[in-house]
Amino acid sequence: MFRFLTAGESHGQCLTAIVEGLPAGLKIDVDLINKDLARRQQGYGRGGRMSIETDRVEILSGVRFGQTLGDPITLKVKNKDWDNWQERMSVTGDSVGPVFTAARPGHADLTGIKKYERTDIRDILERASARETATRVAVGALAKNLLNACGINVISHVTNIGGVTIDKTKLDYSSLSEIKSELNCYDPVAEMKMKERIDNAKELGDTLGGSFEVVVSGVMEGLGSHIQWDRRLDARLAAVMMSIQAIKGVEIGEGFEYANLLGSKAHDEIFIDGENKYYRKTNHAGGIEGGMSNGEVIVVRAVMKPIPTLMKPLASVDIATKKAVLANTERSDVCAVSAASVVGEAMVAIVLAEAILEKFGGDSIGDLLAAIKYYTTRINNG
Amino acid sequence: MFRFLTAGESHGQCLTAIVEGLPAGLKIDVDLINKDLARRQQGYGRGGRMSIETDRVEILSGVRFGQTLGDPITLKVKNKDWDNWQERMSVTGDSVGPVFTAARPGHADLTGIKKYERTDIRDILERASARETATRVAVGALAKNLLNACGINVISHVTNIGGVTIDKTKLDYSSLSEIKSELNCYDPVAEMKMKERIDNAKELGDTLGGSFEVVVSGVMEGLGSHIQWDRRLDARLAAVMMSIQAIKGVEIGEGFEYANLLGSKAHDEIFIDGENKYYRKTNHAGGIEGGMSNGEVIVVRAVMKPIPTLMKPLASVDIATKKAVLANTERSDVCAVSAASVVGEAMVAIVLAEAILEKFGGDSIGDLLAAIKYYTTRINNG
Amino acid sequence: MFRFLTAGESHGQCLTAIVEGLPAGLKIDVDLINKDLARRQQGYGRGGRMSIETDRVEILSGVRFGQTLGDPITLKVKNKDWDNWQERMSVTGDSVGPVFTAARPGHADLTGIKKYERTDIRDILERASARETATRVAVGALAKNLLNACGINVISHVTNIGGVTIDKTKLDYSSLSEIKSELNCYDPVAEMKMKERIDNAKELGDTLGGSFEVVVSGVMEGLGSHIQWDRRLDARLAAVMMSIQAIKGVEIGEGFEYANLLGSKAHDEIFIDGENKYYRKTNHAGGIEGGMSNGEVIVVRAVMKPIPTLMKPLASVDIATKKAVLANTERSDVCAVSAASVVGEAMVAIVLAEAILEKFGGDSIGDLLAAIKYYTTRINNG
Amino acid sequence: MFRFLTAGESHGQCLTAIVEGLPAGLKIDVDLINKDLARRQQGYGRGGRMSIETDRVEILSGVRFGQTLGDPITLKVKNKDWDNWQERMSVTGDSVGPVFTAARPGHADLTGIKKYERTDIRDILERASARETATRVAVGALAKNLLNACGINVISHVTNIGGVTIDKTKLDYSSLSEIKSELNCYDPVAEMKMKERIDNAKELGDTLGGSFEVVVSGVMEGLGSHIQWDRRLDARLAAVMMSIQAIKGVEIGEGFEYANLLGSKAHDEIFIDGENKYYRKTNHAGGIEGGMSNGEVIVVRAVMKPIPTLMKPLASVDIATKKAVLANTERSDVCAVSAASVVGEAMVAIVLAEAILEKFGGDSIGDLLAAIKYYTTRINNG
Repeated sequence: MFRFLTAGESHGQCLTAIVEGLPAGLKIDVDLINKDLARRQQGYGRGGRMSIETDRVEILSGVRFGQTLGDPITLKVKNKDWDNWQERMSVTGDSVGPVFTAARPGHADLTGIKKYERTDIRDILERASARETATRVAVGALAKNLLNACGINVISHVTNIGGVTIDKTKLDYSSLSEIKSELNCYDPVAEMKMKERIDNAKELGDTLGGSFEVVVSGVMEGLGSHIQWDRRLDARLAAVMMSIQAIKGVEIGEGFEYANLLGSKAHDEIFIDGENKYYRKTNHAGGIEGGMSNGEVIVVRAVMKPIPTLMKPLASVDIATKKAVLANTERSDVCAVSAASVVGEAMVAIVLAEAILEKFGGDSIGDLLAAIKYYTTRINNG
Repeated sequence: MFRFLTAGESHGQCLTAIVEGLPAGLKIDVDLINKDLARRQQGYGRGGRMSIETDRVEILSGVRFGQTLGDPITLKVKNKDWDNWQERMSVTGDSVGPVFTAARPGHADLTGIKKYERTDIRDILERASARETATRVAVGALAKNLLNACGINVISHVTNIGGVTIDKTKLDYSSLSEIKSELNCYDPVAEMKMKERIDNAKELGDTLGGSFEVVVSGVMEGLGSHIQWDRRLDARLAAVMMSIQAIKGVEIGEGFEYANLLGSKAHDEIFIDGENKYYRKTNHAGGIEGGMSNGEVIVVRAVMKPIPTLMKPLASVDIATKKAVLANTERSDVCAVSAASVVGEAMVAIVLAEAILEKFGGDSIGDLLAAIKYYTTRINNG
Repeated sequence: MFRFLTAGESHGQCLTAIVEGLPAGLKIDVDLINKDLARRQQGYGRGGRMSIETDRVEILSGVRFGQTLGDPITLKVKNKDWDNWQERMSVTGDSVGPVFTAARPGHADLTGIKKYERTDIRDILERASARETATRVAVGALAKNLLNACGINVISHVTNIGGVTIDKTKLDYSSLSEIKSELNCYDPVAEMKMKERIDNAKELGDTLGGSFEVVVSGVMEGLGSHIQWDRRLDARLAAVMMSIQAIKGVEIGEGFEYANLLGSKAHDEIFIDGENKYYRKTNHAGGIEGGMSNGEVIVVRAVMKPIPTLMKPLASVDIATKKAVLANTERSDVCAVSAASVVGEAMVAIVLAEAILEKFGGDSIGDLLAAIKYYTTRINNG
Repeated sequence: MFRFLTAGESHGQCLTAIVEGLPAGLKIDVDLINKDLARRQQGYGRGGRMSIETDRVEILSGVRFGQTLGDPITLKVKNKDWDNWQERMSVTGDSVGPVFTAARPGHADLTGIKKYERTDIRDILERASARETATRVAVGALAKNLLNACGINVISHVTNIGGVTIDKTKLDYSSLSEIKSELNCYDPVAEMKMKERIDNAKELGDTLGGSFEVVVSGVMEGLGSHIQWDRRLDARLAAVMMSIQAIKGVEIGEGFEYANLLGSKAHDEIFIDGENKYYRKTNHAGGIEGGMSNGEVIVVRAVMKPIPTLMKPLASVDIATKKAVLANTERSDVCAVSAASVVGEAMVAIVLAEAILEKFGGDSIGDLLAAIKYYTTRINNG
C-alpha cells in the first residue's frame, strides 16, 4: 500500500511529506529528486519568486546508505524566504502583520475563509498555493525511482500555451525523451511562438494557461482493473491530474476528439506477428482500455487555466470592509504550464507506483522485480 | 463515511450493490431509482438488448417503511435474460457452452484475460460491460434522494454526438431542468441532426461517441478542500467521471478551452450587492475554485468514445488459435451517449453526497440538515 | 486490495455481502461455506430460533463454473422466517405492527435510537443483532478457500464457559484440527462441565459468556509490518475480533498473563538446527513479533460477554413512556460462545487473506502462489 | 477525515508525523504536547537513554498564531543523540560502522530482515523500536486538544506490574484525574511494591511487563456504530491499543472476567430518574455497548509483555554466521509500563477524535461544537 501526505504552507518554515509503501532496497537517487524540483521552478514566464527558491530536498527518515528500508520516508523542502516570514507565519504568539482581506477571483480565497471560518485570507492561500506541488514533485521523484527500476519512463511535454499549439504530426511518442527547453516543448517552432505570446501577455499585465501531456513508456499490461470503478487506472489518473492546482480538464488518448470520430476510426485494431506477439498499429486509446494499461504508451493530457493573479488586477471584494476592491497581486508569473507539466509527471508516477505495488506486492525490490518478471513472462508466453 | 461496492456480471443472475453511510430517516423514493434506471436504458441509437431489460431495483436491506435506517442498503437489479444464460454463466458445475476467444479492440478483453489468467474472454467481458452502470445509477439515485433533501439538483444533457454540437448560446444553466428527449439534448435542432448522424452511422455498420454535461445547482459553498490533493472536489469528480466505461476525458467549466484564453477573460470576478452578498457575473470555473464548490452551478463535461463493438467488425486476433479474426459483435448499439449522461449524473451525485456527509456528518437526516443550516446561515452572515 | 461490506437485517428478507479482491481462478467450495454457516448455528445452549434457520449461501456474482473471476462476489443468505416478518420489516409502505420500546441493557438499543433518531428500537436491533455474523462467516469461508490454497489452516476451540476452563496442559497447537463437539471444545471433561453450567444457567433464566481461541497453522513469516501502526498484524487481528458482537477482549499468545511474568520466562529464544534452520522451543508470543507473523502458530484469544437477553429479564426503561420496565426477551440462547468461535475463525481468516494479498499481490491464483513460493524459498535459504 | 502518518528511525535525525483533519480555529497548546512527551519518557524502571532525550515537539506546518488552519500539521521530534549516530544512520553514502547480526527474541529482528531482505538488523530495529511512540504521543496530544475543547478527558493509570496489582476497590473512575507518580499508579501501596519488584528484576538482569487502563470521561453517547464491523468503536480501540509495541492484549470493561460471570451480574441495568434522564448504576460494559459509546466512562485495559531486551541476554542466533549467540543488549529498561500507558492515552485520544470528526463533521471548531451541541441537546430531550 503506497500512500503519502504532504504538508506545509507557502511561506511557512518548510514543506514536508511522508511517503509510505516503497519496498526496501530501492536505490534512491537524491539528485533525481532535486532535478525535478528544479525543473518545476523553471520555465519561461515564471516571475521573480522562483529565483530565490532553488528547492532542495532533505530526506529525514526512511533511507539509509542510499537505499530505502521499507520505512516511511520523510521529505522536507525548506522555504528559502522563511527568514522574512517567520513573524507573519509564526506557529505561536499573537497575530502580527497585515491581514489579507481582498479575495482573489480564481483562487480558494473567498470560499476558503468561509468554510474554515477565518478572517485572514492568508490562512487559506498559504496552503492553497501551488507551492505545495514542490512536495508532490519530490514524492513523484521517489515514485520515479521505483518506476525506473521497473523499466518505466515518465516524461511530459507542453502542447498548447495561450492558443499556440504544437505540430503533432512530427510527434513520435515511442521515442520521446526528456526535453531540455525553456517551456518543456518538443516543437521549437511552436515554442518560439509560445514565448512571444507570453511576452505579449506580460506586456498587457495578463496571464496565460495551456495544456500538456504526460507520456509513459515501458509500462506493463494490466495495471488497474475493470472490476470496480475506483480500481480503474484511468479514474485514478484523472483524479491526480485534476487535483493539481489550476488544472481544469484531463483526457486520455484521443480524449475529447473521440466525440467527433466514427467508431471505425477510433479504436486500435489488434494484430499478431510472426512470433505470435500481439500488436497494434495505432494508439487512439492512449494506452488504456477497460480501465487497464494495455501495454501501449500511456498518454494523459491536462489543461491549466491562466494564472488568476494578474498584474492588471481583477475586480473583487474586501471581506472585512465589504467594499469593492481590486484583487491583490502576490505573485507575478505570467504562465506556469511547463511547471505544471512536471507536477503532472509526478502525479502520474505516483499512480503507477501505487498500481504496481498493489498488483505485484513485495516488501523488497527483489521480491517486486521477481513478481513482475514472473508475470510478464507468463503473459508474453500466453 | 459514504461507501459502496457494486457487483454482478452482465449476463449473470443479477447486479447488486451495497451502499453504506446514508443517514437514518431519509425518505427513499423507489420510483426515482427506477426512473433513472429507465432513463439509462433509453436513447436513440440503442440496440435490441435494451428492449428486454426494463430494469427495476429491489431493495433487500437498509430501508424500512420507506425510510433509511442508517444500515447498509442492498440493491439488486435482475438480469431479465438470465433464463437463457444460466447454464453458460452457472456459478457451479463444469464449463459449458462456447468459449469466447476473439478479442475485441477497445474493450478489456485482451488485457483482461492476460491479467486474470483466463482462457474464455467471457470471464472478463461480463464484468467489464457497461451493464454494470445500472448499479451505479441505482446507487446514484439513492444519493440523489439525499441531495434533493438538501436542495441540490443534478441533471445532465448531451452536448455533442459524432461531431454535431449543441448551440450553447441559448443555454441557461441556472434554469436547466431534466430534459425529456430521446437523446437527453436540450437543443431540438441539434438533436435532430444528431439522430441523422446516428442513422448514417448505423447504415455504415459504424458507431458514434459524444460528450455530455452534468450540471448541479443548489450546491452549498465549501464542499471539497484545498488542503490535500485527494480532498479536492474536482479531483473526485474527475475520478468518477473517468471511471465510467468508455469515458476518455473530463473537464470542468471552460475546461480545455482555458488553454486558449487570456487570464483577464478566464476568471470570475467577485462583486457585492446591496445586501452585502457576494456574487459573480460569470461562471468560467464551472462552480469549483481551489478544489472546493464555490456556490455557483457546477458544470462537469465528459467525452465518450464511440462504442467499440461495430456491426462492421474491426480486425483482431483469436487468443486460442492465434489467428487473425474479425472481432465479435455481441451488442448492436450505435450510440450510448445519452445513457452515459445518466450514469454521469449518478456518479456526480455520489461524489456530492460523500462530500456533504464528510463535511456535515450526522447519523440522522435531522442532524445533517441542522448542520447544513447552521453552516449556511453562518457563511451568509459572514 | 481485499475488501467487503455486509448488509441485512436480522428479520429482513436476507443478509448479503459483497467481497472484492480475491484473485481469479480460485476454486470456491460452496460446501465449505455452508459447513461454516451450519457450525455457526450449532452449539449447546443455543435457543429455538437456530432450528428454523439452517443457513445456506447463494452466490449471485463473481464465481463461474466453480472458480472466481476476479470480480466482486455477492453472497446472499436468506432469512428463513421472512414470510412471518415481511409486513413488519417491509421496505415500503406505512409502519405496521408493534413498536419495540423497551430498551435492553447490554445491547445497542438505547444508544442506537438516540444516535439514529429513531422511535422504534427494532430499527436498531435488527442490524445490531449477531445474526449479521452469518455474512461474516460466509465471507470468512471465502477467505479460507484462499488460505487453504496457500497451505494455511484456521481453526478455533472454546477455552472457557462461565468459568469452566479447559485443561491446557494437554493442548498441542501444532496438531490441533477441527473439533467435532457440541461446544467446539477439545477437552471432553471440561466440555461436560461446561454443559452442566449451561444447564444450570438455563434453569436460573440466566446466561453465560466465555472465551475461545483461534489458531492458525501454516502461515508464512512476515505478514503485517512494524513500519506503521495500522499495518501491524496484531492490530488488525485485535480489531476484527473485538468487532464481533459481544466480544469484550482480545489477547495474543500469553496475553494478559504477560503482566505476571519475568522477561526471562516470557520470550521465545531462537535456535538453529543442523540444516541452518531457525527454530523456537516455545511460542509465548502466539506467532506474532514486531507486528508480523513470525512463522509459529498464531494464537488469538477472545472473550464473549454473557448474552444480554435473559429469560429472567433485567431492569430497563421504556423509551416511549419513560417508565421503568423489564427488558424484552426476543431470543432465548443461554450461551453462544461456540458460535462466536466460528465467527472468530472467519474474521481471522479475513485478516490473513487481506495481509497475504497485500504482501504478494497477484490477480490470479497462479500469480499469487508463484509469489509466495518465490518468497518462502528466498527466506528459507537466507 | 482524521488521518496521520508517522515516520522516523530510533537513531535517525528525527521523528516526524503529518496529521490531517483537525478543524480550523482549534487552539493548540504546545506545552500539553511537550508534557505528554515528557510523561512518556519518565517512569521508575527506565534506563539510561531516557535521560538524554527530553523530547520537545516542533510544529513545522498547519498552526499559525497558536491556532490550527485546517491544514495538515507537521510534527517533528529531534533525536538528541543524532550527533553520535549520523554516520551510522546516514541517508547517503556507503555503509559504515558495525553491522548488527544477533537477532533478539521478542523483537521484529529475525522476521524483519527476512521480509525486507536486509542483512543488517539495524535496518529493522530502528523503526520497530518503541521510540516511534514519541510521535504517537505527539499526535495524541493534538487529538487531546480537540477532545478537551469538547469536554472530554483521557487519562491512564497502571494496574499491574510484574504481578503486583492495584487495589481496585478504592478506584472511582468518575473522579480519576491525571496521576503524578513515578509509575502512573493511583494506589501508593501497590506502587511501592511495584517498585520493589522492579528493583528485584533489575538485580536479576531481568525485565517486567504489566497492564494499564485508559479511562475516558465526558464522552458523548453514540460514537462508533453497530452497522458495520469496522465502524465499531471497540474494534477501533482494540486496534490502536494492540498496535502499540509490546502490547499483547486489550479488553474493555470487565474484559476477560466476563467469561466467569452470569448474565444477570454482567450487564448494566437502565434506570430513569425524576428528570426523565436515563442512568446506570454499574459500568461493566466499560462505556461501550453495540459498538458505540453509551455515555458512561470508557475503560480500556491493555497488557504489555516484559521488555525483551534483558541484561541477562536470551539465547539467539547470528544471522550472518548462523551460529548460536546471546542476544544483543541495546537498551537497559527494566519496565516501561508507565510509558506505555501514556502511549495508550494518545492512541485512544486519536480514535475518539476521529470518531467525533466523522460523526459531527465541521471544518471549523465553531461548526464542530455547534453540531455537538445540537446533537447532545436533541438526545437529552429525546
